Amino acid sequence: MKPKLAISIGDLNGVGIEIALKAHEAIKEYCQPIYCINKKMLEKATTLLEIPIPTDFKIHKTKGNFEIKPGCVSKKSGRYSYDSFCDAINLTINKKTQAVVTLPINKESWSKANIVYKGHTEVLRDYFDKNAIMMLGCSKMFVALYTEHIALKKVANKIQMEPLTQFLVDFQTCVNSHKPIAVLGLNPHASDNGVLGNEEEKIIAAINEANEILNKTSQLQNPFTGPLVPDTAFCKFNRDKYTHFVAMYHDQGLAPLKALYFDDSINVSLNLPIIRTSVDHGTAFDIAYKQHSNHLSDTSYINAIKEALTLSK
Amino acid sequence: MKPKLAISIGDLNGVGIEIALKAHEAIKEYCQPIYCINKKMLEKATTLLEIPIPTDFKIHKTKGNFEIKPGCVSKKSGRYSYDSFCDAINLTINKKTQAVVTLPINKESWSKANIVYKGHTEVLRDYFDKNAIMMLGCSKMFVALYTEHIALKKVANKIQMEPLTQFLVDFQTCVNSHKPIAVLGLNPHASDNGVLGNEEEKIIAAINEANEILNKTSQLQNPFTGPLVPDTAFCKFNRDKYTHFVAMYHDQGLAPLKALYFDDSINVSLNLPIIRTSVDHGTAFDIAYKQHSNHLSDTSYINAIKEALTLSK
Repeated sequence: MKPKLAISIGDLNGVGIEIALKAHEAIKEYCQPIYCINKKMLEKATTLLEIPIPTDFKIHKTKGNFEIKPGCVSKKSGRYSYDSFCDAINLTINKKTQAVVTLPINKESWSKANIVYKGHTEVLRDYFDKNAIMMLGCSKMFVALYTEHIALKKVANKIQMEPLTQFLVDFQTCVNSHKPIAVLGLNPHASDNGVLGNEEEKIIAAINEANEILNKTSQLQNPFTGPLVPDTAFCKFNRDKYTHFVAMYHDQGLAPLKALYFDDSINVSLNLPIIRTSVDHGTAFDIAYKQHSNHLSDTSYINAIKEALTLSK
Repeated sequence: MKPKLAISIGDLNGVGIEIALKAHEAIKEYCQPIYCINKKMLEKATTLLEIPIPTDFKIHKTKGNFEIKPGCVSKKSGRYSYDSFCDAINLTINKKTQAVVTLPINKESWSKANIVYKGHTEVLRDYFDKNAIMMLGCSKMFVALYTEHIALKKVANKIQMEPLTQFLVDFQTCVNSHKPIAVLGLNPHASDNGVLGNEEEKIIAAINEANEILNKTSQLQNPFTGPLVPDTAFCKFNRDKYTHFVAMYHDQGLAPLKALYFDDSINVSLNLPIIRTSVDHGTAFDIAYKQHSNHLSDTSYINAIKEALTLSK
């Protein structure tokens, strides 16, 4: 039997439901999706989209009933997308499904619905009281972010040996890479031996410590390499050598990733009791329910499904 | 008559001279190169490389005489590369040539030769007492760096309205772009309206001020757009819209540039009385004089020649 995946349906005023419906045939090949949406809401969405409901579109009845307003920030739609996500988490905790795949939510709609979280990862971090690791990318290149949504001026202070060591150990424990993993430096030229900043010393110490810890238990000796000079880290010659990279901050990893592989990329939450993957785009309110399916790439969604299956093995 | 370009020959223990000799036929189509190297040193290099001296290889006799030691850091080689660069500058100041194109020097060799500068751009900045602008890229995408070789933790403080305004005005005055130029934000998500840092306020003020100043004199109204969200700034949809980008710091611009266009990229010094372009790689001591010409891409050098000609028009 194919593995079951819980699909959190995302903001119903956005493009998520259209992507789910259109990709249903394709993802059925790999898994049995359980969509967290009730029949009434599904009918409203499919009527608006003029897409028939596939006969084998299996749902978990997330409660709620409201009018879909394509492209609108809405308290009710925000609440529903949150409830759909919570249902998907619970299905997975209770072993009814093997992983959660999320379609995009709208942060403003969550805020209107008085949901205190800024996004899926924060919900998961709070729910499990665990330090989730955010990894983005595709099969050609994955980037884990050591720091995420903080002001750039605050990044340098966060580079400390102990938490970075823990991050690296947790990361390799989650991905179990059989190839060396590249860790980036923080400064231009990875500081040119301390001329441009000194955080690389701490990064080197963390790499050594993490390698020492992991060498005791893992097949691959010294899994972490670095610190790489950031501006050449993602050049072809490095992408040929490494698949997984650890970036010190948000844009250091994501600007090159999105320059290269924007359409293919997904978002993965690691270091949690459950697996969660996601498309790496937003609700795209501007094209929701406009039959603009040609502008909608579902590569990211299908990749998210595939990665959820890989990681849940 | 074809325009004359002064070629600073770079470190003779490195790959520069091999690139110059092998690309001579190709660049002759566009310009008349004047190589800053004397006959004796040229003969030593060509003998080692087993490459004949092209009959029309016109030289300017940079003084000096030493043994070439392939791949070695050397005081004498460092001094000679510096002198070659100074000759190229002087030829151009004196209108004998229209621009300077530099082959790579070795920083350690300069340091051994007691040359206080870290690189070409610093020499130019000091020589002309002008705030040179560093721009890297290729015809598909150019990135100007607002801050360059400074520790990441010092970047945020450098984002100030007045110097950034001046930088933007100078930059557009140099490149005279006919298309809008994209200015990046500093923080993740360009701060999400101030939630992740506040430097974007200053960037917006600088963009507005620079646009107002330039609107008085330039054809293109409001040349600067931004601040762009950094992690999607270099996605295909933005590269279709913009050719010139202003990055707030070194790796913000260069990591995506090199991920996409490493082999094609060149380095350009703007906002100076003379034009200088350069290859965007180093002396590659590991492959110098090893007949590894297949590993040597001269795309960057030829692009540097072409850009020097474009800018000196």
